[in-house]
Amino acid sequence: MFRKLSTEFLGTFWLVLGGCGSAVLAAAFPQVGIGLLGVSFAFGLTVLTMAYAVGGISGGHFNPAVSVGLAVAGKFPTSRLIGYIVAQVAGAIVAAAVLYVIATGKADVQLGGFAANGYGEHSPGGYSLMAALVTEIVMTFFFLFIILGSTHGRVPAGFAPIAIGLALTLIHLVSIPVTNTSVNPARSTGQALFVGDWALSQLWLFWVAPLIGAVIAGVVWKIVGEED
Amino acid sequence: MFRKLSTEFLGTFWLVLGGCGSAVLAAAFPQVGIGLLGVSFAFGLTVLTMAYAVGGISGGHFNPAVSVGLAVAGKFPTSRLIGYIVAQVAGAIVAAAVLYVIATGKADVQLGGFAANGYGEHSPGGYSLMAALVTEIVMTFFFLFIILGSTHGRVPAGFAPIAIGLALTLIHLVSIPVTNTSVNPARSTGQALFVGDWALSQLWLFWVAPLIGAVIAGVVWKIVGEED
Amino acid sequence: MFRKLSTEFLGTFWLVLGGCGSAVLAAAFPQVGIGLLGVSFAFGLTVLTMAYAVGGISGGHFNPAVSVGLAVAGKFPTSRLIGYIVAQVAGAIVAAAVLYVIATGKADVQLGGFAANGYGEHSPGGYSLMAALVTEIVMTFFFLFIILGSTHGRVPAGFAPIAIGLALTLIHLVSIPVTNTSVNPARSTGQALFVGDWALSQLWLFWVAPLIGAVIAGVVWKIVGEED
Amino acid sequence: MFRKLSTEFLGTFWLVLGGCGSAVLAAAFPQVGIGLLGVSFAFGLTVLTMAYAVGGISGGHFNPAVSVGLAVAGKFPTSRLIGYIVAQVAGAIVAAAVLYVIATGKADVQLGGFAANGYGEHSPGGYSLMAALVTEIVMTFFFLFIILGSTHGRVPAGFAPIAIGLALTLIHLVSIPVTNTSVNPARSTGQALFVGDWALSQLWLFWVAPLIGAVIAGVVWKIVGEED
Repeated sequence: MFRKLSTEFLGTFWLVLGGCGSAVLAAAFPQVGIGLLGVSFAFGLTVLTMAYAVGGISGGHFNPAVSVGLAVAGKFPTSRLIGYIVAQVAGAIVAAAVLYVIATGKADVQLGGFAANGYGEHSPGGYSLMAALVTEIVMTFFFLFIILGSTHGRVPAGFAPIAIGLALTLIHLVSIPVTNTSVNPARSTGQALFVGDWALSQLWLFWVAPLIGAVIAGVVWKIVGEED
Repeated sequence: MFRKLSTEFLGTFWLVLGGCGSAVLAAAFPQVGIGLLGVSFAFGLTVLTMAYAVGGISGGHFNPAVSVGLAVAGKFPTSRLIGYIVAQVAGAIVAAAVLYVIATGKADVQLGGFAANGYGEHSPGGYSLMAALVTEIVMTFFFLFIILGSTHGRVPAGFAPIAIGLALTLIHLVSIPVTNTSVNPARSTGQALFVGDWALSQLWLFWVAPLIGAVIAGVVWKIVGEED
Repeated sequence: MFRKLSTEFLGTFWLVLGGCGSAVLAAAFPQVGIGLLGVSFAFGLTVLTMAYAVGGISGGHFNPAVSVGLAVAGKFPTSRLIGYIVAQVAGAIVAAAVLYVIATGKADVQLGGFAANGYGEHSPGGYSLMAALVTEIVMTFFFLFIILGSTHGRVPAGFAPIAIGLALTLIHLVSIPVTNTSVNPARSTGQALFVGDWALSQLWLFWVAPLIGAVIAGVVWKIVGEED
Repeated sequence: MFRKLSTEFLGTFWLVLGGCGSAVLAAAFPQVGIGLLGVSFAFGLTVLTMAYAVGGISGGHFNPAVSVGLAVAGKFPTSRLIGYIVAQVAGAIVAAAVLYVIATGKADVQLGGFAANGYGEHSPGGYSLMAALVTEIVMTFFFLFIILGSTHGRVPAGFAPIAIGLALTLIHLVSIPVTNTSVNPARSTGQALFVGDWALSQLWLFWVAPLIGAVIAGVVWKIVGEED
């Protein structure tokens, strides 16, 4: 269990450092910035790379919604949920701290929203709470659905990290303007702790909506995804 | 059959929500928008991800032209065509509705063309009906040709979703300026219903041209693709 | 042989239509154009997708320099060289014609250089004949080296199209500013015929340099790539 | 050993020519430049492509920090370290020379920083020595961790070059603004020799930090990555 929790910690650390790090440090770099397209690839590649590296140890969740969705679908023992979620949130917080150290290591620091998730006036594109709720539920639903499908025994071994990582890239390509994209309560929590204020008061949505989407996906998968 | 039709519904839902969603919400986001390159990746990744997730259940068509082309090549039973096409069109319409809810969830809504397909004055780059017709026929021909080739028994198992998904990305990289890229009558129908007007009156081309391209591909594949 | 030559024709057709098509139609589209990054992906994905589709039939060369390099390395029978090269050049010319029809199907046509290759004042970035020569030789050398390495029996089956296609993407990421990137005499010939003039008079370099690079790669591979 | 050292030389040559070449020639090309996103893909694809081509010969390190990290983890014989590192640095220097010849082959040459790595006033975004140190250590740590994980026997054969190459892409997406991204002392050395001056006096950090990160990764992997 130590190895599993260590790798969930490191994997979520990498997800936050790579994904949020690209957003904070490189997205709006003058002239040659990577934009939302680069941030989308960064988030997806954190999962693709770490799923290959440690998927065989912990399963490579790096996300409380993933652990919960897999548990609902009967693919992950409920008894391990608490340990996994604690390790994931801890990894996200430490990564946010490291990113804070790097990002403030210059003269004219501009942290902006520090890649925290938000809705209403804190949505990057000004989308309402309702739009944010729908987006996060639907996006997490499909994320879990793809995870459950691509890790099924029907699919040749080894391809799941490509499908899952690039699903996260795709989700960001669509939904950064709406909520800055969470689908991952741990990732939202790490950044919110360093932003405080509005980010903490809106954090509830980025636990509730992803978990709802994940639970629905677990249930739907059992109906349409498994053989009778 | 319920499982097959459900996954075709969900897969086409994802294709429209991910592909058209990225175009409507993120393509022209100020400063850091994902552009046509990001939209091209989004469309391709919807197919890549869902083909891994449910390709083993329904075959992962998500597109009436794909179902028809496979049927012509003798790879899909003609008796299932109607059911598949209904499920695909239904998925596209529901996805367009969900996207409409999200996209209108802000103060200064600008739906633009809502990612509908068009030609002439509704072509993104002002291309004529004839240019649109040629483009959609040729692009769908190669899409089906790549699908037939990469799912052939000669190719090691597991790689087809990469080839097919990235083929769709490539097709968008070339042809968004011409028609906003269809090659998929279901995807065109969902958006056209919400735009109405010109989008509905031009919709015929995005059924006719992709189906012509798909039929030609099915015939050509039987000549050059199969062993004697 | 009919099936091999047909698929070489279609594969080179796709390379030119997809690669040059993205450059002509979408690279500089206002505001949301795909840029040189999108063009680089487009060229690479033409090869990735078609190598999966028909690699098992013809080998998936789509490029006279590839056929020659493989022949030098002893991986392709010299007797087939002429047939392959004719099919490749024919595919490139027909594709350039189709692209010409599409690209001129609008009111204010701006073909620019029609994605032809050039040096000196016809280099996109103004690079000299010498810089162009070095670039095309070195880039084609590495392209062939990667093709020879990734198709070797040591590498697990199925991954070569990914390595080879993305190698072509990488080559374009570096060298479009220098020569518009050829590394493929067929691709250069198709576009030059429609541009005429300077493109035809500079075409020699895009036959000579890629073939030199390919021959060197074939020789070097036999020394460092094969077991003793 | 000749074949191993030759391929390490060629692989590092390709890494520098492809990665630094895209930065020098194409990143800031007017209007359609590839930006930091394109440079990030270029660096990653050099490793992805060459790891497929010659990974079976030399292991495909192309980076002294990789060789050292693998040695610490017990995956590479210490006796080969010197030879590998000499070949890697030589490949990087020759590649920088070829790139210099190409880049200066035009009228109004603007080499800028020639893609050298730096901190403080030579950091692209003005980040301090401390931020640079933390970034290079942490990024190299995760790079090695992913290399060790994805090449482990648990992972199906053939996927490691995808994971490792795209990890390098991801690392660049985050950290180009901080140090121009090294995580590879050979790559830093080649460019610094041609820039001289400040690049040489700051070069120490791009040997020290990557090696520290690599050693930590080797140690951590032995604790969390291997079965008991």
